[in-house]
Amino acid sequence: MTLIAHSQNMQFDAPLALQSGASVRGYTLAYETYGTLNAQRSNAVLICHALNASHHVAGVYADQPGNVGWWDSMIGPGKPVDTDRFFVIGVNNLGSCFGSTGPMHANPDTGRIYGSDFPVVTVEDWVDAQARLIDALGIERLAAVMGGSLGGMQALSWTLQYPDRVRHAIGVASAPNLTAENIAFNEVARRAITTDPDFHGGHFYEHGVVPKRGLRIARMVGHITYLSDDVMNEKFGRQLRNGLELQYTTQDIEFQIESYLRYQGDKFSEYFDANTYLLITRALDYFDPAKRFDGNLSRALAAARAKFLLVSFTTDWRFSPARSREIVKALLDNGRDISYAEIDAPHGHDAFLLEDPQYLAVVRAYFERIAAEHS
Amino acid sequence: MTLIAHSQNMQFDAPLALQSGASVRGYTLAYETYGTLNAQRSNAVLICHALNASHHVAGVYADQPGNVGWWDSMIGPGKPVDTDRFFVIGVNNLGSCFGSTGPMHANPDTGRIYGSDFPVVTVEDWVDAQARLIDALGIERLAAVMGGSLGGMQALSWTLQYPDRVRHAIGVASAPNLTAENIAFNEVARRAITTDPDFHGGHFYEHGVVPKRGLRIARMVGHITYLSDDVMNEKFGRQLRNGLELQYTTQDIEFQIESYLRYQGDKFSEYFDANTYLLITRALDYFDPAKRFDGNLSRALAAARAKFLLVSFTTDWRFSPARSREIVKALLDNGRDISYAEIDAPHGHDAFLLEDPQYLAVVRAYFERIAAEHS
Repeated sequence: MTLIAHSQNMQFDAPLALQSGASVRGYTLAYETYGTLNAQRSNAVLICHALNASHHVAGVYADQPGNVGWWDSMIGPGKPVDTDRFFVIGVNNLGSCFGSTGPMHANPDTGRIYGSDFPVVTVEDWVDAQARLIDALGIERLAAVMGGSLGGMQALSWTLQYPDRVRHAIGVASAPNLTAENIAFNEVARRAITTDPDFHGGHFYEHGVVPKRGLRIARMVGHITYLSDDVMNEKFGRQLRNGLELQYTTQDIEFQIESYLRYQGDKFSEYFDANTYLLITRALDYFDPAKRFDGNLSRALAAARAKFLLVSFTTDWRFSPARSREIVKALLDNGRDISYAEIDAPHGHDAFLLEDPQYLAVVRAYFERIAAEHS
Repeated sequence: MTLIAHSQNMQFDAPLALQSGASVRGYTLAYETYGTLNAQRSNAVLICHALNASHHVAGVYADQPGNVGWWDSMIGPGKPVDTDRFFVIGVNNLGSCFGSTGPMHANPDTGRIYGSDFPVVTVEDWVDAQARLIDALGIERLAAVMGGSLGGMQALSWTLQYPDRVRHAIGVASAPNLTAENIAFNEVARRAITTDPDFHGGHFYEHGVVPKRGLRIARMVGHITYLSDDVMNEKFGRQLRNGLELQYTTQDIEFQIESYLRYQGDKFSEYFDANTYLLITRALDYFDPAKRFDGNLSRALAAARAKFLLVSFTTDWRFSPARSREIVKALLDNGRDISYAEIDAPHGHDAFLLEDPQYLAVVRAYFERIAAEHS
């Protein structure tokens, strides 16, 4: 049975105070829900998205049968996160470009498009905004909050900001903060965008242009870090685009991997907002719950009350298993209930979006446990 | 004792046929020599450079005491490659931007600056050009050819193109070819350069501009791959540039690693030629001696007659130890004399340029063996 998704908007009039000291007022969050909230309102699962994703988590739109939710392999009727049992909520974060208020919208204070004046948002700000959405949906406590990569950071932050409102947190291919190398890749992407002459300091909308060159480079860099060296070698290796003969060219495509990256970059530059890219990569950079505990993650996670499932993938070099194990250790130091699975998968960071049977089975078993706890 | 270096030029009038089918005529190679060629002409060591380096391998120029050769820790009087014993030759490759004929020079056929019309050069072409230089210096057979990274590829190629002219080949932090991921990083750098509006299809010289935005991005990407995750964390970690407080900015520098990368990018864009960057990364992409042996490296290396020293570094993820071991295995399959050292060093690919005592000791011992063989 195909799940039919409906994109909805929730309007918030009260200002949201942000970590930076700024605030946003009169904002909209785009969201989708799947399944039915039970009478006890105890079966809600919030899904948090990563860099290039949205509230469209599962199913398809009735009028766009090809537009499949980004975690459709995970979420739906009879799937690991079973929408026949759980009321699943997908939400688009503030500052994004897929429906929620973001840089391409008008600032209600000035009437001008925000552009780069959109306030800097953090993982904590997103969680605060998500909590208000949950309030508006009449849900006091989530059965689970779940996400991969940056989404996993939001799940972790929920357990610290709203410890009594989350029963379970599921973080896949995540990390307690970015390494210097992670930040470095983000910075390359940002510099590619901001030094594109079409960026115009982030007010390119007014010039009728888009910094596509920068977005393309940003996406190409990102893609390299999402894949493992192994899977790139397996998929592309040193294959030439034109048979066996070299063309001896520095500017044209010679290898298949180049063709793939250019295609990904071009596609991305057609739909993704440049200011959103800056905001989301910065939210990644900034996330660091241990910062105000002198870097001591165990002390930082002492506030958490939820039970946890963490999943990592052996070939993920962006957020390696070692990073997930840091979270596991810190939670164990606090005597928390934590399940951890390290999945032997070849696909690198991208594995969290793919249909690996072992991975899906681990999540399925965990959600069966959640369902059993409160049946 | 400080070694004083003298940059010299050798002019070649006979055309050099390139792998692409094109040829270069009327070209110059810049080179330096250190030490004295012995009467038997048997103590010559050729040093091949990598992406961002030149013929200025060791010592300083009399009028530029701060301009130290890029491998000065390795080469000089009493150093591992001892210029009191060996006659060491540093050479700048064709297409480079440090003295040898390259894209910023005039094409003798048209009188116009080559720009992107400079022919595509390969590792094999460089080796052919180096062999002519060696001819001109009156050297029939090299005691050793040595290089790191791309320089190691040239050393390997020497043993295949001129098996009887090389007694020893020393390849440090090298690889038998690039992986898809390696090519992908090169392609990001190239696209950043070629899509910079100041690139003008590679004829920016005529417009009085330089594609600095692209060069900066290229260098930033490169730098990330030269360092290990560990050393980046150790040197920069999550340190902020301004104390402990976040500035909440997407465009300004927040983390020290950003400051470092921007500085490296800026510096590089001031002196490196954009067309040279394209040419050298392409030479890296193309190098693949096993290609015409259906990918069988053992068969490809059957032509080699030299003795080998290969060195790799544990944290080098650009050219990992596994890549050096591929070469080792292929040479062993051919019964070659091969020494291999895997150095436990934290610095990633950059380690080949640094003063690691174990690494320097391994090279020193190997060159003592070379000296003893022919003393």
